[in-house]
Amino acid sequence: MKNIKPLFISFEGIDGSGKSTQCQMLYHELLDRDLVVHLFREPGGTKISEKIRDILLDKNHSEMSAVTEMLLYFSSRNQLIVEKIIPALTRGEIVLLDRFVDSTIAYQGYGRDLSLNDINKVAEVAIGNVHPDLTVLVDTPLETAENRMDKRELDRLEAENAEFKQRTRQGYLELARQEPDRFLVLDGRESIETLKQTVIKKVTQILEIEA
Amino acid sequence: MKNIKPLFISFEGIDGSGKSTQCQMLYHELLDRDLVVHLFREPGGTKISEKIRDILLDKNHSEMSAVTEMLLYFSSRNQLIVEKIIPALTRGEIVLLDRFVDSTIAYQGYGRDLSLNDINKVAEVAIGNVHPDLTVLVDTPLETAENRMDKRELDRLEAENAEFKQRTRQGYLELARQEPDRFLVLDGRESIETLKQTVIKKVTQILEIEA
Repeated sequence: MKNIKPLFISFEGIDGSGKSTQCQMLYHELLDRDLVVHLFREPGGTKISEKIRDILLDKNHSEMSAVTEMLLYFSSRNQLIVEKIIPALTRGEIVLLDRFVDSTIAYQGYGRDLSLNDINKVAEVAIGNVHPDLTVLVDTPLETAENRMDKRELDRLEAENAEFKQRTRQGYLELARQEPDRFLVLDGRESIETLKQTVIKKVTQILEIEA
Repeated sequence: MKNIKPLFISFEGIDGSGKSTQCQMLYHELLDRDLVVHLFREPGGTKISEKIRDILLDKNHSEMSAVTEMLLYFSSRNQLIVEKIIPALTRGEIVLLDRFVDSTIAYQGYGRDLSLNDINKVAEVAIGNVHPDLTVLVDTPLETAENRMDKRELDRLEAENAEFKQRTRQGYLELARQEPDRFLVLDGRESIETLKQTVIKKVTQILEIEA
């Protein structure tokens, strides 16, 4: 196992977009190249963060306020940053995240109409200057995403209505427009294999290794 | 049962200070006067907040970061505000809180040395303009407080060291100096009955009813 350089990549998209599949495939590709790489899912990734995840995704918590929800996401995220992400990057390793702060801006900000200013204030405290080097946004139309999720048991956020998900998708695209250098936007209707090759090409370029 | 005017009172102090006893005694005194009064403990007071409390006080969570801890307190608090405190005050009722935002400033800010600026930023988002009309600070020397707690099983925060608790106590006194109109500072070495009478005198004055 070897370290080349620290690299922090987040994967974003609405539920059913295909981002988790891409995240896992990149993880195994990098492992196959003998690199030290970590994959965490948000919310979660540490013992404490997983307990926060249970509260967030519990379908019986329909009374949860939008601000409480946002603060819980940032609690889970801060613990993951302090306990796992910073130590790994400091050792020169690669960190892949299935969701990060853009999820909160897209879902709670654009989706739930929570003040973006409030979210950014909390983000300053909870995240500091820990930002992804690359964010892969798998942009998938709602219909395609929902077809893929038919077979799953939905959690509290997955069960939200279509307008919410549409606003969330548009929020992601707006974020990508604001930071074109950080975002790699993929068309989620393309085949898994095509998307995978695009991601690997981008990441191997950054790492300056062969694709 | 009757409403006179909305009133929001928080009780503060280090663990073992005697604040919970005073809070409960005032609660029963107000009930005896046939007033509509609610008593909540922090963290907690709602189904979601109690689950957050379990994470916060679990002694196995020694790896919890100071920022995560602070954000969890504010998550629990926001849910309590939205679900219970604002509706009760809107109905003209009395709300008593065993701990509120001053606990976070005293424990996480002064105790754990977390940036007060960061705490205030999150407080703006999580609390907005919901502030107690009166805060009863039961100021008790560490030795007195610890003697009272000998018989209890300590939780994660109660098990902190003496320097931490000393900084927390001083933090509370500093807050009281900054807002003398909001704070009623009591000497926790006085008898339970003496303290109770002082609290009742103050509260009945505010409510303009007989002591």
